[in-house]
Amino acid sequence: MTDIIRVIQYGLGPIGLATARLIDERDKLELVGAVDIDPAKIGKDVGALLGRDRGLGVEVRGKLAEVGAKADVVVHTTNSYFDLFMDQVLEILDAGFDIVSTSEELSFPWTDNPEEAAKVDAAAKKAGKTVLGTGVNPGFLMDSLPLFITSIAQRVDHIDVTRVINASKRRGPFQAKIGSGMSVDDFRAKMAEGRMGHVGLPQSTAMLFDTLGKKLVRFENSVEPVVADAPVKTDFFDVQPGQVRGLHQTGHADTEDGEFVSLTFRAALDEEPDGDTITVKGLPDLTVKLQGTNGDLATVAMAVNAIRRVQEAAPGLATMRDIPIVTAS
Amino acid sequence: MTDIIRVIQYGLGPIGLATARLIDERDKLELVGAVDIDPAKIGKDVGALLGRDRGLGVEVRGKLAEVGAKADVVVHTTNSYFDLFMDQVLEILDAGFDIVSTSEELSFPWTDNPEEAAKVDAAAKKAGKTVLGTGVNPGFLMDSLPLFITSIAQRVDHIDVTRVINASKRRGPFQAKIGSGMSVDDFRAKMAEGRMGHVGLPQSTAMLFDTLGKKLVRFENSVEPVVADAPVKTDFFDVQPGQVRGLHQTGHADTEDGEFVSLTFRAALDEEPDGDTITVKGLPDLTVKLQGTNGDLATVAMAVNAIRRVQEAAPGLATMRDIPIVTAS
Repeated sequence: MTDIIRVIQYGLGPIGLATARLIDERDKLELVGAVDIDPAKIGKDVGALLGRDRGLGVEVRGKLAEVGAKADVVVHTTNSYFDLFMDQVLEILDAGFDIVSTSEELSFPWTDNPEEAAKVDAAAKKAGKTVLGTGVNPGFLMDSLPLFITSIAQRVDHIDVTRVINASKRRGPFQAKIGSGMSVDDFRAKMAEGRMGHVGLPQSTAMLFDTLGKKLVRFENSVEPVVADAPVKTDFFDVQPGQVRGLHQTGHADTEDGEFVSLTFRAALDEEPDGDTITVKGLPDLTVKLQGTNGDLATVAMAVNAIRRVQEAAPGLATMRDIPIVTAS
Repeated sequence: MTDIIRVIQYGLGPIGLATARLIDERDKLELVGAVDIDPAKIGKDVGALLGRDRGLGVEVRGKLAEVGAKADVVVHTTNSYFDLFMDQVLEILDAGFDIVSTSEELSFPWTDNPEEAAKVDAAAKKAGKTVLGTGVNPGFLMDSLPLFITSIAQRVDHIDVTRVINASKRRGPFQAKIGSGMSVDDFRAKMAEGRMGHVGLPQSTAMLFDTLGKKLVRFENSVEPVVADAPVKTDFFDVQPGQVRGLHQTGHADTEDGEFVSLTFRAALDEEPDGDTITVKGLPDLTVKLQGTNGDLATVAMAVNAIRRVQEAAPGLATMRDIPIVTAS
């Protein structure tokens, strides 16, 4: 067995391409394959998709089965929801690879998708491989990091995590995803379809409750538009007063004794100051403020940094609270 | 096997007594024994030492071998240095118990005490038990927490951790330990004996370097007195201008390419503002500021929270970067 871990990148959207780039930069990782369904990408060299002069010698295939190279781990960055990614995960396990996935619902599926979680766990154990869902959020900021902070608490009465993102600093698709430039009516209509807003608050909540031995009796999630009261201009949007410049999302989770977790995700253009705050009430009271946790950079880093962890971990569905800390390497 | 973990508290100084109290408060832990060398404590019930009306039914013994109860884990809180605690650790392993220790030199001994580390590791494997050295610092603030923060970094160029403690809020022995009320000459004389200042900077540095695959070529440690320029009064000290009100300690660690880690530990009476700051330079730059990480409360919490981890871990000498995240429970 060699020290170099051979990796297939599955999904070549913005996150997947950035992941492929970082894998290629790391000495102990080797990009040996790439998969995407986009006909415009299939057949091209990953180097070309990264805008490089030289190819990487890795041609994009439309299906995993068409990747000829021997590999150890698949980094999976396609979409958020079990109904969309389940078959992909099972296919990857069936092919005999460990998986690091950025799919949000996979980060802690035991509470919200228990049947799917059990199915993935069983398939992983059968294959003798490990599946880990991770990223900056879910996977870190609102779950495994606050949990690690509680290591220095004698008693935990309440956890609050608030993430504020100035979306003006982020890429266009992210600005679009949070509703930038929409009318309030359009925002609410899209919200009613159920797939507006950050995915992950239920999963983060579930990891906190389950790990700290709390019983979840109520979870309330709400998404509201953040409306511009002055014009906002970015490279991608020209938002007029009265239009949406972002979203404000909250999750509140109770035990039988009242609220135990509150999570806030606020992402809007020109939102200042940005940053993340974790507040643990208990003994002692703890406050942790983070700056610089750019979602794209951080999720790509986490996915790549976690590769060696899934190689070392026991077979099955793992979560960030089950494995040794992921670190840069 | 029962769900309750039976614990012996070894060492009943301020930290050990606080640990015994917390073990007693936890539903899934049971305090079954206590050990201390102090003749004034031997034979007393731990409840009495905690100032309680009712005993806990746990009498302090002078030696581990005199503790009759069956147990699973020993929490070891005696002293900082291998030459003082080594025999205790070997004795505990020989008796067949997992160990959580707050001994600073045990937190990451592989670089600074490689022979002792190998000896503990071999003894633990022979006994089929796990040894973990932990606490808030070393164990968390300057090593495992910054390492976990690097999980969201694509590249790490430099790590700085600065801990500032307002010692006026802390107990008398801590105020004494940092030199409060001493003359500068006395401070420097005691410092020259080599055991003044916080213990743990080399261990934290070593965990950072080893985990991030860096080669340590130089480590420089310095301790300076913080001198009062106005009178400072606490419940325990009356410090005059010109006398010492605390200490300022730094560790700088280089790779062949220059400084990679800088650690600062500053603890002084009336020092404001206090708090901890972790700064990771790289991609992205990350800043984490912590408030409320009281050293005594936090170390006790970490020791007790880590108990179930050593029960689950593989036999041998473990460090905080080798096991799943410790959390409250």
